[in-house]
Amino acid sequence: MDKPLILVTNDDGIYAPGIWHLKKALNEVGQVEVVAPMAEKSAVGHAITLSDPLRVVEVEREGGFFGYGVNGTPADCVKLGVHCLLNDKPRLVVSGINLGPNTATNIIYSGTVSAAAEGTIIGIPSMAVSLTTFSRKEFSFAAKVAAYLAKKILENGLPEGTLLNVNVPPLPEDEIDGLVLTRQGKGRYEESFDKRVDPNHRTYYWLTGKRMVLDNGDDIDDLVVMQNKISVTPIHYDLTNYDFLEELKTWNLKLPDTKQS
Amino acid sequence: MDKPLILVTNDDGIYAPGIWHLKKALNEVGQVEVVAPMAEKSAVGHAITLSDPLRVVEVEREGGFFGYGVNGTPADCVKLGVHCLLNDKPRLVVSGINLGPNTATNIIYSGTVSAAAEGTIIGIPSMAVSLTTFSRKEFSFAAKVAAYLAKKILENGLPEGTLLNVNVPPLPEDEIDGLVLTRQGKGRYEESFDKRVDPNHRTYYWLTGKRMVLDNGDDIDDLVVMQNKISVTPIHYDLTNYDFLEELKTWNLKLPDTKQS
Repeated sequence: MDKPLILVTNDDGIYAPGIWHLKKALNEVGQVEVVAPMAEKSAVGHAITLSDPLRVVEVEREGGFFGYGVNGTPADCVKLGVHCLLNDKPRLVVSGINLGPNTATNIIYSGTVSAAAEGTIIGIPSMAVSLTTFSRKEFSFAAKVAAYLAKKILENGLPEGTLLNVNVPPLPEDEIDGLVLTRQGKGRYEESFDKRVDPNHRTYYWLTGKRMVLDNGDDIDDLVVMQNKISVTPIHYDLTNYDFLEELKTWNLKLPDTKQS
Repeated sequence: MDKPLILVTNDDGIYAPGIWHLKKALNEVGQVEVVAPMAEKSAVGHAITLSDPLRVVEVEREGGFFGYGVNGTPADCVKLGVHCLLNDKPRLVVSGINLGPNTATNIIYSGTVSAAAEGTIIGIPSMAVSLTTFSRKEFSFAAKVAAYLAKKILENGLPEGTLLNVNVPPLPEDEIDGLVLTRQGKGRYEESFDKRVDPNHRTYYWLTGKRMVLDNGDDIDDLVVMQNKISVTPIHYDLTNYDFLEELKTWNLKLPDTKQS
């Protein structure tokens, strides 16, 4: 078969609606294999499982084989899929469709984006796709966008180590106002904790947060989706702050002189 | 008291030797408060706990109060410490001393580095310190290096969103050959899985990997530590690949025309 092999995963779990829509749309582009967590794995960041064994089950949806379910994280699924479960190396990894935005500082907590990052680490062009809502499950247009961009990536390739992070507003197709190439915003959640007491009189804390946008500009991922536009950001994992590396030279760091201290 | 407040955490857990040495050394620099995971949390990446409550216990070591133990990730510890447990906002967050290197592509899986990243997100200068070995527990010089750099950061500050990622070879002080400002290498593990069968005849997979260095240069973090030098890399979390963002414009991406497809 000539159709390119596409590995699909997510962090909402293999039974989530988003991955179902994604697989269906990508069936038009290539041969799709799903390897995804059995359970929801939101906010796991780029976790991998070292201290426990990974197990795999074949998952059915709607009466047929849907994909491989793994008791691990999204990054585990990509590793295990590529190294053990698929017969060939995929030509593309697509992660999603996540229910909830993956924009701005948020990205670093994202299991969805980490799965695509894992794809790039293994040397496969990759993309993360998110629907920027926690409730309105209008996946069908986002799935079309994913298929369109998957074709473009297969045609053009991506630089080594770089993935596309795509965020689609949860709107019907005719209310989407365009597609914008963006950079990662610096916005973050302003967070706090609820301090509560359980029925056994023990204190516990629950993380809570209110969104606060700190960045501004025409090309910021989270601002673009608020304007009903699709955001496409190329991201990579060279975390070096090169500008500050120059400035740091002026600190004249050296080995600490422990004889003097 | 005029001594600057320093929040110390790690990902090897509050009972690990590295955090004990780190606290002891930083006591010379400021007022140290420890908030760390109760259990080892290696390779958790930048995970945060959303779906479970966090609990806190006061942990003793060597007959006295040592710090707050949390049933969460390193990033949880920094959030909870700053927002709930400490009386003032820390002037510095230090994460470590990790047993094992945090260099090259590895960084993105690191709970140690993620804790320092969480500090920068909250707006506090931060540093991650690792000993580049999995076995030789020679923490005392690494702890001195941490104290030296902590003083430098308190004097000079760090740019918003930027932390120092420090890796120290596990050698006696007189065998350390210098301190080098570095960039994050592109080296990664060449990974595979052991496929095994459990006593109940069920298949499981265990991640394994052999180190492979892909990068080269005089200023690469993992190569510098192999030369018995301390590596100091400034890292940040703007993941945008700005170079490719320009090239991506030539793709002429637009809204997919679903009427045609």
